[in-house]
Amino acid sequence: MIGASARHVTTNPVTINGTLDALMCGQQLTEPHINHFVRGVVDGSIAPVQRGAFLAAVRIQGMSPVETGWLTQAMAASGDVLDLSGVRKPLADKHSSGGQSDLTSAVIAPVLACHGLAVPMMSGRGLGPTGGTLDALESIPNFNVGLTIEEVVSQLNSTGAAIFASSTNVAPADAILYADRDVTATVANISLIAASIMSKKIAEGLGREGFNDSLVLNVTTGSGAFMSKEAEAIQLAEAMVDIAIRSGINTSAVVSSMDQPLGPLVGRSLEIQQAVRVLRGETEGFERYYQVVVELATNLLIQSGLYSAAQFDEAQASVKDKISSGQALEKFMEIVAAQGGDVSAIRDLNKLPTAATKVVVRATSSGFVNAIASAQIGWAVVYLGGGRESPGAPIDHGVGVHVHKFLGDRVEKGDPLATLHVNDDARLADSIAAIQGAYQLGGEPTEHGPLIIEVIRGN
Amino acid sequence: MIGASARHVTTNPVTINGTLDALMCGQQLTEPHINHFVRGVVDGSIAPVQRGAFLAAVRIQGMSPVETGWLTQAMAASGDVLDLSGVRKPLADKHSSGGQSDLTSAVIAPVLACHGLAVPMMSGRGLGPTGGTLDALESIPNFNVGLTIEEVVSQLNSTGAAIFASSTNVAPADAILYADRDVTATVANISLIAASIMSKKIAEGLGREGFNDSLVLNVTTGSGAFMSKEAEAIQLAEAMVDIAIRSGINTSAVVSSMDQPLGPLVGRSLEIQQAVRVLRGETEGFERYYQVVVELATNLLIQSGLYSAAQFDEAQASVKDKISSGQALEKFMEIVAAQGGDVSAIRDLNKLPTAATKVVVRATSSGFVNAIASAQIGWAVVYLGGGRESPGAPIDHGVGVHVHKFLGDRVEKGDPLATLHVNDDARLADSIAAIQGAYQLGGEPTEHGPLIIEVIRGN
Repeated sequence: MIGASARHVTTNPVTINGTLDALMCGQQLTEPHINHFVRGVVDGSIAPVQRGAFLAAVRIQGMSPVETGWLTQAMAASGDVLDLSGVRKPLADKHSSGGQSDLTSAVIAPVLACHGLAVPMMSGRGLGPTGGTLDALESIPNFNVGLTIEEVVSQLNSTGAAIFASSTNVAPADAILYADRDVTATVANISLIAASIMSKKIAEGLGREGFNDSLVLNVTTGSGAFMSKEAEAIQLAEAMVDIAIRSGINTSAVVSSMDQPLGPLVGRSLEIQQAVRVLRGETEGFERYYQVVVELATNLLIQSGLYSAAQFDEAQASVKDKISSGQALEKFMEIVAAQGGDVSAIRDLNKLPTAATKVVVRATSSGFVNAIASAQIGWAVVYLGGGRESPGAPIDHGVGVHVHKFLGDRVEKGDPLATLHVNDDARLADSIAAIQGAYQLGGEPTEHGPLIIEVIRGN
Repeated sequence: MIGASARHVTTNPVTINGTLDALMCGQQLTEPHINHFVRGVVDGSIAPVQRGAFLAAVRIQGMSPVETGWLTQAMAASGDVLDLSGVRKPLADKHSSGGQSDLTSAVIAPVLACHGLAVPMMSGRGLGPTGGTLDALESIPNFNVGLTIEEVVSQLNSTGAAIFASSTNVAPADAILYADRDVTATVANISLIAASIMSKKIAEGLGREGFNDSLVLNVTTGSGAFMSKEAEAIQLAEAMVDIAIRSGINTSAVVSSMDQPLGPLVGRSLEIQQAVRVLRGETEGFERYYQVVVELATNLLIQSGLYSAAQFDEAQASVKDKISSGQALEKFMEIVAAQGGDVSAIRDLNKLPTAATKVVVRATSSGFVNAIASAQIGWAVVYLGGGRESPGAPIDHGVGVHVHKFLGDRVEKGDPLATLHVNDDARLADSIAAIQGAYQLGGEPTEHGPLIIEVIRGN
């Protein structure tokens, strides 16, 4: 699946020299070799020049699934691991590899909690064209993402879901190697990408003995995703599912298209509004977003064992019912309240942060929307101040982009492509240019692939 | 010859990321990529983690001859390069990859100088089981190896040969990468080994326009050599000749056996004595040493254009004549005098440093000498204080090993294998054990390969 699987297992000594020599000779490493490497990365006994050699050798030679699994587990164990042993329900979590208008957690978490599962959504912040779950939730006045582990366990036992920031010491080995990869041309390796993502998920404490802990991965692909190529996204999804299964987590992956924003609203507060409107049952205009949310939640009900794979339709119906009945919305407000957020802003979305002015971006020619550089829509939000170009920078939750035209739509010159929600117009021109540059119009409509490209079930 | 030569030349940008990505994708680098890398290694703009990735990628993917040549030239140019433009004769030099009892410079330099060539022997010190030319020459009282470049040029124009220490800033890029290779399992790559050796030779300033500057490489192989395997030694010799030719130096390589010490005397002062005795025409007992000296010198006469390849026998006769006539010995004394050395110690070898006592090491069983771990003989000298285990350590010039038994010899239990020349008996037991452990005796004689294994002519 990843790299050659029939490689000879090394008999080299468990030293950094033995490990590097084995990799360079195309031999397979053992678990002790990989543990020794990861430990040395964190305690500093393995030098930068040796880390660079390791990463280059892995990129060139590939890693087998079993090596990738060991690497992931060693990186997960290199720092804090959430102790969720006090949660007396099966755990269920979702991870997305990111995109635009894809804040699915705000719907999936309450839906799953309504099914009696505990959802420990340890989330991140946005960077570049990809939005972050924590940033979106912080649009809700007073919403607190800084929960202690005791608060997380307590909230999971009572409310059934918590959306919170990771500790700063999650998978420190990954943090070091991630930065190394950035400067050594070793980002583009499926094993290293999968291990990096999954080490942080495994550090969340899923895969407890005696529980059907489960995970669904939304692996996005296309113009707005980290993995632009579909084949690579599928490979990555397979690698991540394999790693999760090796760590005892029931996992499936949904490979979905990010060739355009998942919904019409892109921006932190705007994406909370989109989620709440769907939770209210207003799915019109949000069909693609709703479809992915339902697909992800349904897969988790199956992975957690509440439904069998043969009962897919029943599981899906149950997901939809929790939404249409209003139970999921109630649960969401319960979560917001538990984390100190202002529930009245969910009841009245006008209380969420908004922008002072709106600017309509219009088409400069006519044609069919044949392609959208979706990441450019994300960048348009960044230029308005709604995202960040470097970690830790402050953001404006109220700004964003309301997208009007999607793939296949007919556009006449002068039609609105999108409406910008603006507070600060310092880089407004960049934002407009990003939107206009994102659209590729053609004289004839072209074919577009499906939204849900593939579902990979681990078991 | 080295790696794949039909690789696609990269169109990646000349950045460290572009360079590393190209290497990892199996593409061939351009000269600007390699120059950018080497410059960055020396000025620190390329980080250790990036150096490690580069070396690992090179070890795995290999380097083409043209890339290896560029790497060597860039490393040579990264520091001081000798300016020998003031020397009005063709330059000729010899490099040996080391062994035991192989101080050939002391005979080759005067023989070549007698032929009107200028021999700028920038030499090194010994480490581990391999002796260093400078250490041997310093056995001669007051011999000064610390010449300035002006002194070198002046001595080459007058005497025709100089044996001196390199500046501390020769090929600093190589010094950095050499240390990196040691800790990243990237020593074992022919391109990197060849580039490392040749960068320091090229920094000697050979290959001047308008002169037939020449070089002969003595690439040793066997139990006492860096390259234990013959096939790898031949590969290395070919790679080094290729590099030298690309740098405009007429070069040939002699691949010779170091499966036993080249002569009977191993140690700093002992090797000077051996060289002087051969210069006096006393070749009996030194046949193998004499054969290699003549072969190397003859090849340099051909490379420098004084004889054609078809005139090998005439060239060889001329070399032997310079020795048997005593002219080479006179020239050697001229060199010693020019560098402040006590010429009377050459006339009377008893004035060279000696050891206080002699210890005979005897065979503990009988049989034919089927193998000698030649490096162990070198280590026996180190244990006596005549070599060093770490750079910069002081050494005792007077001690060493007089070897009595060679490959194929019949030995009876109790026969002397070697005589140790001892001043300090602190590690005498280690030295004796090294000698006894070095000999492998068998009931039947075995076949042994030739002394001169292969000669590779660059042009």
